Amino acid sequence: MERHTYLTLLTPEDARTRWFTRIAELNAGPGEEYVPLSRALHRTISRPVEALRSSPAFHGAAMDGIAVRAETTFMASTRAPLRLETGREAFWINTGHPLPEGTNAVIMVENVNTEDEGRTVVIEKAAFPWQHVRKLGEDMVATEIILAPGTRIGPYEIGAMAAAGVMSPPVFRLPEVAVIPSGSEIVPLAEAREEDLRAGRCLPEFNSLVFSALVDEAGGRARTLPVVPDEPAAIAAAIRSAVEDGADLVILNAGSSAGSHDYSADVIREMGELLVHGVAVMPGKPTALGVVRTSGREVPIIGTPGYPVSAIVAMEEFVMPLLALWQKHEAARRESVEVFPCNPLPSRPGMEERIRVKLGRVDGSLYAVPLPRGAGTVTSLSRADGVIRIPRDCEGISAGEAVRAELLRPREQIEGALLAIGSHDNTLELIDSFLRRTHPRFRLTSAHVGSLGGLLALRRRQCHLAGCHLLDEETGVYNQRAVREHLAGEPVLLVRLVEREQGLILMPGNPRGISSFEDLLRRDLRFINRQRGSGTRVLLDYHLARRGISPSRITGYRDEEYTHMSVAAAVLSGRADAGLGVRSAANALGLDFIPVGVEEYDLIIPRRYAEDERMNALFEVVRSDDFRAAVTSMGGYCTDRTGEVVWEYDGN
Amino acid sequence: MERHTYLTLLTPEDARTRWFTRIAELNAGPGEEYVPLSRALHRTISRPVEALRSSPAFHGAAMDGIAVRAETTFMASTRAPLRLETGREAFWINTGHPLPEGTNAVIMVENVNTEDEGRTVVIEKAAFPWQHVRKLGEDMVATEIILAPGTRIGPYEIGAMAAAGVMSPPVFRLPEVAVIPSGSEIVPLAEAREEDLRAGRCLPEFNSLVFSALVDEAGGRARTLPVVPDEPAAIAAAIRSAVEDGADLVILNAGSSAGSHDYSADVIREMGELLVHGVAVMPGKPTALGVVRTSGREVPIIGTPGYPVSAIVAMEEFVMPLLALWQKHEAARRESVEVFPCNPLPSRPGMEERIRVKLGRVDGSLYAVPLPRGAGTVTSLSRADGVIRIPRDCEGISAGEAVRAELLRPREQIEGALLAIGSHDNTLELIDSFLRRTHPRFRLTSAHVGSLGGLLALRRRQCHLAGCHLLDEETGVYNQRAVREHLAGEPVLLVRLVEREQGLILMPGNPRGISSFEDLLRRDLRFINRQRGSGTRVLLDYHLARRGISPSRITGYRDEEYTHMSVAAAVLSGRADAGLGVRSAANALGLDFIPVGVEEYDLIIPRRYAEDERMNALFEVVRSDDFRAAVTSMGGYCTDRTGEVVWEYDGN
Repeated sequence: MERHTYLTLLTPEDARTRWFTRIAELNAGPGEEYVPLSRALHRTISRPVEALRSSPAFHGAAMDGIAVRAETTFMASTRAPLRLETGREAFWINTGHPLPEGTNAVIMVENVNTEDEGRTVVIEKAAFPWQHVRKLGEDMVATEIILAPGTRIGPYEIGAMAAAGVMSPPVFRLPEVAVIPSGSEIVPLAEAREEDLRAGRCLPEFNSLVFSALVDEAGGRARTLPVVPDEPAAIAAAIRSAVEDGADLVILNAGSSAGSHDYSADVIREMGELLVHGVAVMPGKPTALGVVRTSGREVPIIGTPGYPVSAIVAMEEFVMPLLALWQKHEAARRESVEVFPCNPLPSRPGMEERIRVKLGRVDGSLYAVPLPRGAGTVTSLSRADGVIRIPRDCEGISAGEAVRAELLRPREQIEGALLAIGSHDNTLELIDSFLRRTHPRFRLTSAHVGSLGGLLALRRRQCHLAGCHLLDEETGVYNQRAVREHLAGEPVLLVRLVEREQGLILMPGNPRGISSFEDLLRRDLRFINRQRGSGTRVLLDYHLARRGISPSRITGYRDEEYTHMSVAAAVLSGRADAGLGVRSAANALGLDFIPVGVEEYDLIIPRRYAEDERMNALFEVVRSDDFRAAVTSMGGYCTDRTGEVVWEYDGN
Repeated sequence: MERHTYLTLLTPEDARTRWFTRIAELNAGPGEEYVPLSRALHRTISRPVEALRSSPAFHGAAMDGIAVRAETTFMASTRAPLRLETGREAFWINTGHPLPEGTNAVIMVENVNTEDEGRTVVIEKAAFPWQHVRKLGEDMVATEIILAPGTRIGPYEIGAMAAAGVMSPPVFRLPEVAVIPSGSEIVPLAEAREEDLRAGRCLPEFNSLVFSALVDEAGGRARTLPVVPDEPAAIAAAIRSAVEDGADLVILNAGSSAGSHDYSADVIREMGELLVHGVAVMPGKPTALGVVRTSGREVPIIGTPGYPVSAIVAMEEFVMPLLALWQKHEAARRESVEVFPCNPLPSRPGMEERIRVKLGRVDGSLYAVPLPRGAGTVTSLSRADGVIRIPRDCEGISAGEAVRAELLRPREQIEGALLAIGSHDNTLELIDSFLRRTHPRFRLTSAHVGSLGGLLALRRRQCHLAGCHLLDEETGVYNQRAVREHLAGEPVLLVRLVEREQGLILMPGNPRGISSFEDLLRRDLRFINRQRGSGTRVLLDYHLARRGISPSRITGYRDEEYTHMSVAAAVLSGRADAGLGVRSAANALGLDFIPVGVEEYDLIIPRRYAEDERMNALFEVVRSDDFRAAVTSMGGYCTDRTGEVVWEYDGN
């Protein structure tokens, strides 16, 4: 099997500098154009904009009243009121209207009396010159520079240009970005058939959609070409066609990993210069940067990795800054804050690592729960609140060690989040959805580490609440004993979220004929387990112990998953024949379900947070009829006591 | 003259609450729709989005290598290498491809040897189950909620939905906003003729352009109706037509001041309910809020003031939050920071005031220079870096008193700005333009208070540099004496910006036959002066004193303007017959110019800032050939010594 070697790995900064330096020599880039004001929003000014007219364009009244020549009023006083003839010495005028010739002041209507059926006005106070007058050019004078190049045009800038008579400002042309998806097994998203996807006969292409959106946000115009097979000649032809069609930048997606079928780097080298191949960042390493020469033009090109998370890193490190550079503005910098990881974050020395995290502010500190790092884990993008960069010379961050994170969401969204760490239940996402609908300032962020992990996080004061369903095997009572054991000194409320049916999740139609825990001993069956510390695992062990079944005799007992849904997915895929989980997970994937018991799933909430406005909003949600109805419709849940405080623990 | 009275003035918050409460009862608003992913960017999710498929859709290889059943490899070791038959027990596989039936682990290609012309592979280490495998549903499982309502769709969310097979997410429909400009003297911007504008025969209508941009940014779709004259029947007809065409919200612009021709409030009252008329905020007071009933619908309506700055406040206080509410997200909140005003900010008790300011960070503190407050001063919108809100119960803020300001620009732009306070020269805007082009991180923010004001600001350490052209009337040397007098103890550099011709600015063709300072004594002439403390004022006084002319004998000597351009505009408009100013200002407006002398305009830069990276960028700009060429082309400037350090002052 052929393998490519990377050029020496550069840091992202060095790689960017090398590429940008070469691009600067090319004099590539989009140039300028003039656009009408009505289409100028969010474009970037390319050269100084001068006012074409002065504003105001005349001396106008700033008040309703009479316009006068101030000098004629100097003798007016209370003792000697002055009479002026209207239409000759005094002129009624409305705010905004031009002063009549020869006048230079306005007297407010409140200070004017009339006589002689309005033919005469009487004033008792002198006016000073230019009183209550908006003078010509007060706001801007023709030829003044009103906007500098690099200014992003917002509503205010549109107003300023309109007032200045600038109908078509000079702006940078939107860079044309050609996106070429490549890969023989890749099919456009809309054409991907479900059965082919499941069989792995094709991979849906959607990076181009994400790239287009990123380019759009960075002020470019993306065009996606048809998917190209993994053949150097086909890739080269697509690049030529993109350049001929006027692309300012070519993005070649996938095919740039160091595995097989990697032709991006080769094609770039053959069509011009390969400047960078491989960057010291994880994910994102297999990125190629260069310049291609074709059809009489020299155009920058980037080969981005195929995995979505790696591809995003390549886009954010290289493409977004280039588009910003071309428009002479800075790429939006993310706010950086100090956070404390809830778990250790190991890292490979020699590579800068990007770890996406969920964040929540607890007792003044921002705690970070890492999301799965897989380069294909798209949800780590959409679920993340922030990114931690671990420098290349660092072997990782310990739990609780302060580290910087870049925020991916507005700070107020993060400040408005309740952080739940603990057992997973599908109703947690439902709480979040309801919360956002009814209280847009708040949200529920949840990280799934099992019931016990949640109690430990509560003890370390790293979260606001924990979902928990830990059975006391001796008394048959849920959660209380575990709370006493792990949260001594921390008064908490146990608020019932749901009671839920736990049971054996089986393939549709139960083809293996499983009916009891005893069947799990069969050698022809494979079980899928939940991780240690999870309530479901405790429940399983409880039932096995009651039946005198030794766990070591169950095939797959050591095979662990972290959520109900993953257990169900394992059964659906045939990886396992049975697992223990909640009915809603089985229902969701159309699997069979044999109930084993009803368990109590509670939210454990420190009393100190019980009065928090976010927590009150959560209580309001879980106690609403709408929420209960939505839970019930998921199947397998009982909501009779939902929202009830089922136990209070005083910490002793 | 008829005058309307406002209803009791509500605070903006109370007014908003009253309007929103009524709107909530109406059940008005835009509803939902489904849009294809390719057009979903920046729309807002309206209901929970569930994954339609699991991702990955199959167990796939996470590495290139061979797929095996882990259990068959358990005996492999270095001492006892295991041989497997390819195509039966071991299968070559590339990253991302599905595992063949019956396999559950991948061994990396690096750890595999081949024998027997590839028919056999040899491994020396056991594989554990699911090693290097991306398992089905690892990222997401069908039916999981992946996005909550209220989520704004960005590139990452598009990726998550694509992976989940959600091709058309549910989003809030874009609210349809009808904008009705009104006013008998108003003409559409594109139709406004220059001579009519100058004569005050018409006012250009451009608030609708600004409104459209604001609505667009807030996630709405604006449609501007033709301008309506100031007649109740015409206004009512336009509202009916907007509602019939499906408007979710009607914005009636202008005509809502308390002056004459104010029919907005009346029309709203007659067509439905007038809930609010007059809000305790300056600018923005003459705002009307209500609901109109027509064509079988009840639709919220706002009457916004005609002046652009007031109109913006009404939009930001009422329209933007309503559009956010309808899309169930928060209106973007601006970052708030502590600033120190350079000047006192008086305020009228009983009204909340909004004062727009320019900002610069000097020695760790953010200093705020207020911009002109006029409701028609459009440039106060585009030039502002921040807004200070002075509460209604406050009579103002003293200079140097800490106060909060909301940022209108990204913080890094403000941090990257050099703050110049002092004399105005057109080349300052040119420096800013060049600076942004060559160093996008930096900019030059300038506030114009005259040469002396700049020295005082430098002494108070409220700015980074000051433009100065103060003539020592005794020695004829510029700036040095003033620096010694005002900056004792502060070592500074004097960097020559330009030498510029000062002279008398006269009407085109010099119709009044002015040729010398002595002519200014003529009773038929009116002079326009610069403010006290400005270098130009000192120059004038120098010349008058040398000639023995008493200033009190010059008509208009007390009539002050703050910039060269304003002086030129006063002459152009006929408000004055002559003024003293730089040639470039006269050139800009096509006026005559009689040179009086060449003055030296220097940048005064504290030595502590001379090594600042922003200052170095400024030096680079002013010393560049391009910059000098641009200055020279403005006329009236000499750039021979531009960028030169002409004098160093050690503080003693």
